[in-house]
Amino acid sequence: MNDRLVVIGGGAAGMSAASAARRVNAQLDIVVVEAGAHAAYGLCGLPYYLADVIADSDELFAYSPEFFRDKRRIDVKFNTEVTALDAERKVLDLRQDDRTYQLAYDSLVFATGGAPIIPPPLAVDSDRIFTIRRLDDATRLHRLLDDRRVKRALIVGGGYIGLETAEALAARGVEVIVAEALPMVLPNFDAPVGELVHAELLRHGVDVRLGCRVESARDDGSHLQITTNGGAIEVDLMIAAVGVRAGSSVASQAGAECGPAQALVVDDHMRTSLPSVYAAGDCIAPHHLILNRPAFIPLGPAANKTGRVAGTNAAGGDAAFPGIVGTAVVKVFDLAVARTGLTLAEAEAEGIPAIATQAVGKTRAKYYPGTDPVTVRLIHRPDGRLLGAQMVGAGDGVAKRIDVAAIALQAGFDIDALLGADLSYAPPYAPVYEPILLAAQAASLRRPA
Amino acid sequence: MNDRLVVIGGGAAGMSAASAARRVNAQLDIVVVEAGAHAAYGLCGLPYYLADVIADSDELFAYSPEFFRDKRRIDVKFNTEVTALDAERKVLDLRQDDRTYQLAYDSLVFATGGAPIIPPPLAVDSDRIFTIRRLDDATRLHRLLDDRRVKRALIVGGGYIGLETAEALAARGVEVIVAEALPMVLPNFDAPVGELVHAELLRHGVDVRLGCRVESARDDGSHLQITTNGGAIEVDLMIAAVGVRAGSSVASQAGAECGPAQALVVDDHMRTSLPSVYAAGDCIAPHHLILNRPAFIPLGPAANKTGRVAGTNAAGGDAAFPGIVGTAVVKVFDLAVARTGLTLAEAEAEGIPAIATQAVGKTRAKYYPGTDPVTVRLIHRPDGRLLGAQMVGAGDGVAKRIDVAAIALQAGFDIDALLGADLSYAPPYAPVYEPILLAAQAASLRRPA
Repeated sequence: MNDRLVVIGGGAAGMSAASAARRVNAQLDIVVVEAGAHAAYGLCGLPYYLADVIADSDELFAYSPEFFRDKRRIDVKFNTEVTALDAERKVLDLRQDDRTYQLAYDSLVFATGGAPIIPPPLAVDSDRIFTIRRLDDATRLHRLLDDRRVKRALIVGGGYIGLETAEALAARGVEVIVAEALPMVLPNFDAPVGELVHAELLRHGVDVRLGCRVESARDDGSHLQITTNGGAIEVDLMIAAVGVRAGSSVASQAGAECGPAQALVVDDHMRTSLPSVYAAGDCIAPHHLILNRPAFIPLGPAANKTGRVAGTNAAGGDAAFPGIVGTAVVKVFDLAVARTGLTLAEAEAEGIPAIATQAVGKTRAKYYPGTDPVTVRLIHRPDGRLLGAQMVGAGDGVAKRIDVAAIALQAGFDIDALLGADLSYAPPYAPVYEPILLAAQAASLRRPA
Repeated sequence: MNDRLVVIGGGAAGMSAASAARRVNAQLDIVVVEAGAHAAYGLCGLPYYLADVIADSDELFAYSPEFFRDKRRIDVKFNTEVTALDAERKVLDLRQDDRTYQLAYDSLVFATGGAPIIPPPLAVDSDRIFTIRRLDDATRLHRLLDDRRVKRALIVGGGYIGLETAEALAARGVEVIVAEALPMVLPNFDAPVGELVHAELLRHGVDVRLGCRVESARDDGSHLQITTNGGAIEVDLMIAAVGVRAGSSVASQAGAECGPAQALVVDDHMRTSLPSVYAAGDCIAPHHLILNRPAFIPLGPAANKTGRVAGTNAAGGDAAFPGIVGTAVVKVFDLAVARTGLTLAEAEAEGIPAIATQAVGKTRAKYYPGTDPVTVRLIHRPDGRLLGAQMVGAGDGVAKRIDVAAIALQAGFDIDALLGADLSYAPPYAPVYEPILLAAQAASLRRPA
């Protein structure tokens, strides 16, 4: 009999793991256990499906179940929940509908993802409260929007998903309120960046309420009646977008070591502390290259990569994941907002001496049509060593520029090395002094000789 | 009396040098000697001025002469040629109109730029033959286009300037022939990239003739009569775009060491082999980080950077230039075409064992509107060490992606380090597997374990 690899979770990490395992080992028996009815869809696309930017939710699927079954010989068990793990006996307890059974494995990958956090005041019984994480919920919300039954919505949380959803609902003609408990939107950026994003939200008619905490929610049969520290709000529906928690409970109950945010701790081969048990994606806290410790920053690219590494190793291959630097980009109406590494606030919270240098460059030669400003904020140590970067500006001209900083960060560049970087130039695409070089130059001039 | 810095050349490198010198030393007497009537204009913008993408040639100027005179106290002597240098006595021979005089310096920066090469068969007396390097020539050509006196034009050379000019003339309704002596357009790219660009030129009605050498040119008073190895051509005008040679003659006559393409050899402080004489921009062959020797690749960003370094050091400061990796991007109609490091052909010519891995990714999530393909070609050693990259695709989504490879190259990444890079993702701006990561993955799978 062949060895069996079981992957728990059919999301990006899980399907990457299963596919990588198949590449390594043609004989392996590969089973994916998925709690929901779908696998391998791009959950980051849900806001764009809601906005009708994507016509059909089917487009969100990377591959069909048939593709996995027939082409990759991966057996995906849908609507099946893992209730317990016996890591010593290498057996999982599963439940599908009312049926419970056991499944033995030789190697196991946890790719259980993250679950949206519902703040306690929002944990009420109402079909007017949504999260943007599962296709089923998004489909139900989409139907409400199609029926023009949503006039006014409250989004709780001004992070990535909150703001993407604000844009989506605004595009569907909904009056949107964003309530953020912290004193800025995108609170994982530095304040000057948050202010630019705040202005963009206001420009598009979003009602942004900072320092606003929801205290209670009640479904009166026709609306949601919300109370906050800033007064009462009546809306047709509410979106909880305050983040996700790692789906680590089965693994941690079986004894797997957990780190920040209760996410699973893994080594660079995605091994958990349990024998033959790997983990990947939004349920882990991978190594952060700048913090030099595990960090819980659940994002798509690391899910795919750690999935591939976990699957490769679980199938007997050899792959390593170097770690993350926390690179991310989000579209907020006409702005692209991006970050990598640490913010100044994060560096300060870690006790790392840091300086922020901000400069405004342009996306093209100043004389070329369609030139837009780009704000670049570099975070660096007093000796010049790069710690992070943030960028804000219009669309395509900005989004991928953050990757330059991400690579420089990963390579351990200082400000002078960045300043010397040989970056591309042509008037239609860049000014001769790239915005990031302009910021590096400003940082270099500030440093003591 | 104050020390005097003389900068020869008022282009990007020269004005960067003069400005940097002023930042370092407020007392310094700074003189820029410029052979032409203009300083500090973006010559890379000339094709866009010709195309009427830029309304007014005044927009090409980074700063006005008054700005340099009044704000930076830089004395720019226009229409003044340097005819000789006595490096021992630290004196320059100058000529302005019929007047000749001498100018003493304490430190000197050669920023004499490059001069367009005119192939011998094109060196005939005709006002129908142009180069795209000087504003005066471009203004004259612009006037001809405005007067609708150009029906048909021959561009000799299918490199950056040749193709940018082809696009510009086509935009003005001119029938364009591009004659390239080598068997591909953009001959400093690998053939598969050249083929994509060739197809784009054909799609826009450009008559591309490969392996085509001009043998003679004659102005018959109403047209240019050209003979080539592929037959006779009659055109209204001709553009010579076969490259530039380094403007190093005065320096080399004074004994400065020259390297590849007769360009000046400099150290990382932009010192030439002559005492107190620095050089920057298109007249030098700076250190190439991948070739590990001087290379002549005249491009705007290095001109600005080496200018700044030369000026800083010439004024008594301390700055170093790490070197180039030959990063460049060019717009060819609807394609952005970019490179960094070595092509496969260049690596082979250097005797460096190299492999090319090509992959086609997308600029956005596959389900997001406006997603375009990006071809990524990675050049790497058999052991995975990155040697270069080339990219082709539509516009903004591609142009700055090459910079990621440029930084990775500068940092000495191998394919696995690149594959592990934490790059940004959001459906509107990138697929979860960035095109460059897709190519890195393909390269990684090809390597022997």
